Amino acid sequence: MSELETAPRQGDEGAPDVWIEFEPDVLEALQGVRAGDRLVILTWLDRADRDVLTVHPRGDTARPRTGVFATRSHHRPNPIGLHPVQVLEIEGPRVKVSSLEALDGTPILDVKPLLEGEITDR
Amino acid sequence: MSELETAPRQGDEGAPDVWIEFEPDVLEALQGVRAGDRLVILTWLDRADRDVLTVHPRGDTARPRTGVFATRSHHRPNPIGLHPVQVLEIEGPRVKVSSLEALDGTPILDVKPLLEGEITDR
Repeated sequence: MSELETAPRQGDEGAPDVWIEFEPDVLEALQGVRAGDRLVILTWLDRADRDVLTVHPRGDTARPRTGVFATRSHHRPNPIGLHPVQVLEIEGPRVKVSSLEALDGTPILDVKPLLEGEITDR
Repeated sequence: MSELETAPRQGDEGAPDVWIEFEPDVLEALQGVRAGDRLVILTWLDRADRDVLTVHPRGDTARPRTGVFATRSHHRPNPIGLHPVQVLEIEGPRVKVSSLEALDGTPILDVKPLLEGEITDR
């Protein structure tokens, strides 16, 4: 994947498994993360347009313009992506996770465990 | 609330309803957000310690130190809070939401709708 346009929109539309690589200076923060864990990955959608305040939902111009806070558009003032994933494999500083719809090279901002019962599969 | 220590830890432990105030320059992005909507509010936990990489989960020193990416500690390299809420009321630039465990004055980074079936009540 090399363009925002071609990125799958939601996990149930065919997002790929991806490797996340962590910087050495935050590796200790991964302690306790294990294969099978369900996490939320927060990304900085660095190719999004931060000046966009309204969009046609899912790019469908037949649908009326809606404020980006009422949509999951990547384009928004602070373009932070939320990605519920499952940990598949851990190899040192690299963590393989399921179904993350983001472009190669997208910066990771944060990683959190899903709380019991908080997020279900879509 | 004025100190991080006194903030409730999760929504089911008594977080209050709060008013969120939006800046005039992003108000248009709220178009389509309505009372009853379920949202995720992303906050910048500006009083967190960004140098912390491991913690005793929930501050319980009887539990072994764990990497912050395996916990919901506020202290972490990029202290972003995730708060599932329901919209109770909208008054111009102010939106009242249920059960948001954050300190007064905490900056809001982003607002997203919860996807169908994505997050359940805790």
